[in-house]
Amino acid sequence: MPKIAYLESVRTHNRLSADVPQTLDPATAESLYVRYDMDELKKTATRDLPAKAAAASVTSLGMWRYACVLPDVTPVTLGEGWTPMLQSKRYPGLYIKEEGANPTGAFKARGLGLAVSMAKHYGLKHLAVPSAGNAAGALAAYAAAAGITAHLYMPKDVPFANYLEGIVYGADVHMVDGLISDCARLVGEEIKAQKAAGLPAEEVWFDISTLKEPFRVEGKKTMGYELVEQLGWTYPDAVFYPTGGGVGLIGMWKAFDEMEELGWIEKGSKRPKMYALQASGCAPIVKAYDEGKQVSEFYQHAATFAAGLRVPKPYGDQIILDILRESGGRAIGSTDEAILASILDWAKNEGLLLSPEGAAATAAYDELIASGELKPTDKVVLFNTGAGLKYTDMIAEAMHLRRPGSLPTSMPVGGIITPV
Amino acid sequence: MPKIAYLESVRTHNRLSADVPQTLDPATAESLYVRYDMDELKKTATRDLPAKAAAASVTSLGMWRYACVLPDVTPVTLGEGWTPMLQSKRYPGLYIKEEGANPTGAFKARGLGLAVSMAKHYGLKHLAVPSAGNAAGALAAYAAAAGITAHLYMPKDVPFANYLEGIVYGADVHMVDGLISDCARLVGEEIKAQKAAGLPAEEVWFDISTLKEPFRVEGKKTMGYELVEQLGWTYPDAVFYPTGGGVGLIGMWKAFDEMEELGWIEKGSKRPKMYALQASGCAPIVKAYDEGKQVSEFYQHAATFAAGLRVPKPYGDQIILDILRESGGRAIGSTDEAILASILDWAKNEGLLLSPEGAAATAAYDELIASGELKPTDKVVLFNTGAGLKYTDMIAEAMHLRRPGSLPTSMPVGGIITPV
Repeated sequence: MPKIAYLESVRTHNRLSADVPQTLDPATAESLYVRYDMDELKKTATRDLPAKAAAASVTSLGMWRYACVLPDVTPVTLGEGWTPMLQSKRYPGLYIKEEGANPTGAFKARGLGLAVSMAKHYGLKHLAVPSAGNAAGALAAYAAAAGITAHLYMPKDVPFANYLEGIVYGADVHMVDGLISDCARLVGEEIKAQKAAGLPAEEVWFDISTLKEPFRVEGKKTMGYELVEQLGWTYPDAVFYPTGGGVGLIGMWKAFDEMEELGWIEKGSKRPKMYALQASGCAPIVKAYDEGKQVSEFYQHAATFAAGLRVPKPYGDQIILDILRESGGRAIGSTDEAILASILDWAKNEGLLLSPEGAAATAAYDELIASGELKPTDKVVLFNTGAGLKYTDMIAEAMHLRRPGSLPTSMPVGGIITPV
Repeated sequence: MPKIAYLESVRTHNRLSADVPQTLDPATAESLYVRYDMDELKKTATRDLPAKAAAASVTSLGMWRYACVLPDVTPVTLGEGWTPMLQSKRYPGLYIKEEGANPTGAFKARGLGLAVSMAKHYGLKHLAVPSAGNAAGALAAYAAAAGITAHLYMPKDVPFANYLEGIVYGADVHMVDGLISDCARLVGEEIKAQKAAGLPAEEVWFDISTLKEPFRVEGKKTMGYELVEQLGWTYPDAVFYPTGGGVGLIGMWKAFDEMEELGWIEKGSKRPKMYALQASGCAPIVKAYDEGKQVSEFYQHAATFAAGLRVPKPYGDQIILDILRESGGRAIGSTDEAILASILDWAKNEGLLLSPEGAAATAAYDELIASGELKPTDKVVLFNTGAGLKYTDMIAEAMHLRRPGSLPTSMPVGGIITPV
């Protein structure tokens, strides 16, 4: 595992030390990336990973197989990463990256696995997060594993699973009558008040919001390494990524930069077109992309049952829009009706229960196949960012499906419940 | 992948052909095991698997890494197997085998992954299963992937996730006002009636109940291969297995037989003590073990929130009891209160949300640590057979936890919900 050389702000390229916990570039409020001594890394890091993993400890079998390009830290691990890549049974070029197989059933485990490992390394005692749901669940789990207190702020109408996660993992759970943007404001105000009140430094909460500290994006970059390794160290033609905060997309792009510099991918290989998929009920990136804007506007009246996509203004919007345009991809929004139809289509025809976020991506894929913009043979990696099983309540509600528990107990043996 | 030499009944050792679909030994009603030409296998099968997997297709990264000891069939795969093995943060010798990372969130994916692959190979069109919940969900998913119709019979009070799985995967779902034993009876009666009515052979349902056909146990044996490989091709001191039907335990024992014969494990290595863990509300194996019986009795008034353990009389009871005694292990039951306490303990202190079945195993582990029968340094592999996230409704009910959805919408921003 390499030492961090420095932290670098995304656009201005200011350098900060990683010896102390950092949030944003204090001069510009930009996000920070982790940077290594790449000359040193070229000598030590190798993509010949499977042989190494076999010889290493059992905990190295997940995303820590990429330890040679991750910060030098003792992992707080729950088995995150190295998720299945499943070939579609209908579209020969389409691969589903099944992130629902992660701990806490979502890709969020990668970013928070690394960020909490670093927080423990720094000796932080209180971590706070505004979340659309799954980041809260993941933080609660990793904080519990690390012996750190988690403070969760999420909309009160998140999937029930996210609420339960917070409670059972022993977190400090705040259900907010608002959106993730309200949650972010509340976390910020609380920390400001704690500082104003002169709380001892170790009692002040650390804001572990994605892109407001450097390590969640660093953990998520492993999705980029993994998809390339699982395709035999080649790029696909396109990557479809459900975009709430969009940080997975940013992390993958960083991974592609690094892999090219390390020579793990031949220089000049054509990068995949990056597609950001949203719900039409909350589509700030789609709107900004279509209007040719550099940044997004706060999306008014955000509403969709794809809970993870209810992010009215992603903090990394500018970086995301840059990547979409540079790669030749774009942003597409799907209605909740199209998302639900795609969930049922994929369940019935491929045996996969996608999350609503993942189904926003498959719905958009169908649209591009229908229009001819994509061919079924184009090699596409599509991320199912979470397990459909985390959304049983949301999916059932969207389907108007009755619970078996509402049956009269006198129902005769063999009775069949049909959906209403 | 080796050809199947023959199918063999467990005790009488009658041989049957695998050229046609088989259920039980017609002469003795015993379960059937898959047998290979072991002399041939010794020449062709190798435990040097990681190198092979790296060169193979992406779908070979799960349990199909053991293709060299599985039947020669085209896999219907959803990414099952090769689940994380997590070292406990408190007990240095304890490892959690996290089967919740499987497709459909449970170990059932292994057995049904293989059984549905074989069913497709045989050209079967209708598969029926009585289930405590998770087998129904897994069959529904794999049948959907294979283009086969699934007929599910499960108790009406299974976790809601199991019901939803059946519906979204497009299965024929029967919610029964009874237990899995009632479900099994109904499936048997339906098939009998279909035959009596002279339905064409391809329209008659095939009963894919575990141990009533040979391939579910064959798929589950991969848990045995995996735990040994992930421990560097050595045995642990003990294996803790939540036991409803108990077929995972039977499958692992078969894997140990095979690995020893193939020389993957040194001859004379001491096998792990096998522990079968149940809920005291449904503990037929515990009762039979404690009373020194060879078979179990039907457990009256079976009731526990560990839905997967509500199996009043496992079909493989005799095999299970033999294995427990031969290995020097035993059977232990835990109350629902102890199971819930263990769920909360593991969530808060290790960051893992276990299924109630998995927590029946951790509760028993605690008991043996407290009594001194086990030391924290004894190497134990404990199976969490399913994802806690599949049981949000059962766990919440056991905790008397309110849903955030029941909040008044006028609740002020920042309001905190506390569990009642």
